[in-house]
Amino acid sequence: MDADARAKAAAEVMWRDDVASKWLGMKVEEVRPGYARMSMSITENMVNGHNTCHGGFIFTLADSTFAFACNSHNQRAVAAGASIEFLAPGLLGDVLVAEGVEQSLQGRTGVYDMRVTNQKNELIALFRGKSATIKGRLVEDA
Amino acid sequence: MDADARAKAAAEVMWRDDVASKWLGMKVEEVRPGYARMSMSITENMVNGHNTCHGGFIFTLADSTFAFACNSHNQRAVAAGASIEFLAPGLLGDVLVAEGVEQSLQGRTGVYDMRVTNQKNELIALFRGKSATIKGRLVEDA
Amino acid sequence: MDADARAKAAAEVMWRDDVASKWLGMKVEEVRPGYARMSMSITENMVNGHNTCHGGFIFTLADSTFAFACNSHNQRAVAAGASIEFLAPGLLGDVLVAEGVEQSLQGRTGVYDMRVTNQKNELIALFRGKSATIKGRLVEDA
Amino acid sequence: MDADARAKAAAEVMWRDDVASKWLGMKVEEVRPGYARMSMSITENMVNGHNTCHGGFIFTLADSTFAFACNSHNQRAVAAGASIEFLAPGLLGDVLVAEGVEQSLQGRTGVYDMRVTNQKNELIALFRGKSATIKGRLVEDA
Repeated sequence: MDADARAKAAAEVMWRDDVASKWLGMKVEEVRPGYARMSMSITENMVNGHNTCHGGFIFTLADSTFAFACNSHNQRAVAAGASIEFLAPGLLGDVLVAEGVEQSLQGRTGVYDMRVTNQKNELIALFRGKSATIKGRLVEDA
Repeated sequence: MDADARAKAAAEVMWRDDVASKWLGMKVEEVRPGYARMSMSITENMVNGHNTCHGGFIFTLADSTFAFACNSHNQRAVAAGASIEFLAPGLLGDVLVAEGVEQSLQGRTGVYDMRVTNQKNELIALFRGKSATIKGRLVEDA
Repeated sequence: MDADARAKAAAEVMWRDDVASKWLGMKVEEVRPGYARMSMSITENMVNGHNTCHGGFIFTLADSTFAFACNSHNQRAVAAGASIEFLAPGLLGDVLVAEGVEQSLQGRTGVYDMRVTNQKNELIALFRGKSATIKGRLVEDA
Repeated sequence: MDADARAKAAAEVMWRDDVASKWLGMKVEEVRPGYARMSMSITENMVNGHNTCHGGFIFTLADSTFAFACNSHNQRAVAAGASIEFLAPGLLGDVLVAEGVEQSLQGRTGVYDMRVTNQKNELIALFRGKSATIKGRLVEDA
């Protein structure tokens, strides 16, 4: 397997397991080594009475995207921490896209930046995640 | 109304509106000026195949608690940003409690720290939120 | 003045005033709208007995770069907060370069990312700064 | 040695080595297990033309305090990352005190919170540091 195939295969294993992201209606749009892109529609369960999305769901979309990006080398990794800046509200019916790019991977520590935009390409949030690699691979690397 | 009564009344108005926190099964345990405590059980929708909670739901519990704490002075406030450190996993069936305490409120900016623990009082996550006050009150202050 | 000339002129006014950055031996390499690049050599005053640079000086270089980037539109702005990830040590004699790029500027809030590298182009630190614009301009915009 | 004596002895070894903190005029006020307090006066080298302290020096004071707190168990630890919120300016002549308290130490990862105040006990900044323990001790534990 080359690096791209490995990233795709790792993502498939993760996705099978990822009840929470499915429950929230997320889709995996693309996974490459050090990269992931996912989308999610803002539903009635995610908003308050003013149709504004709870920030936790915006974080969760970015956090899932982070997980797919930091596991894309087929080396298991977990989130150690993250920060998010909320820049504009998400609204009922919006389709959010989170795009995550690896900034650094040195030793066991990775840094990944996620940008969350809406269907008008407005920037909704910026998320930075720190990953720690752990033992184990997602797929056998034949 | 004194400050405690105002905090409780503001929390009631927020809770009526907070579809998302209810959907996730959260409970408001206590709200005082500059303080909030909420709880949430980790359900099957929130975990992956290894029964480990998606970090996004831990964040969301802390973020809701943050919202109640930073609106407790009956001055509307929104989350500008937040950071979270994931210290131990949340597991299926765990009951998480997030306790939030105001650290600073100067001008329009507040800083609030949330500690998320499980039913064994183990520390699961530390969350720090930055709020920005906006116009408007939650309850008429008669 | 066009945007580039304004950015340069604003940087000159800031630099005249910036005793601290000069004291640490920083140089302004380039300033454009939403962008700044600065450099600093790690001197004997900045290291411990193992010739490793105190993280505070790496932060300070990035923070100065952040200040030049977020004031580059000739609208005064101050740092509201920042986070830094330390990825590799800075060593005595290293020449560090911090490159800062605007990620978002909406309303009064900006987000800027700084990358700090050494003379071998190794990544030393990642810094994310949040700015708040305040009243006033740096130069008369004739 | 008991834990308190060990913390003091570890701090003495660190301080001998800490050229940078001495250069900036810092003083170690107190070190106990999981705790440190340091002070620093804002000098002419640290301010701009309006007598306002460069945020980098406020960070550096907090970062030094963090280092003493996270090494206070006589297990070597380094800063992996940090975030800071700037809440009020430091002014020429102010005496800043940073007080650092361990929030969590699980496995190799620690979280420490530093509060920076001035001589009027006004809150200047909040700093949160993440440490990673490395091999080695500071003092022989006889």
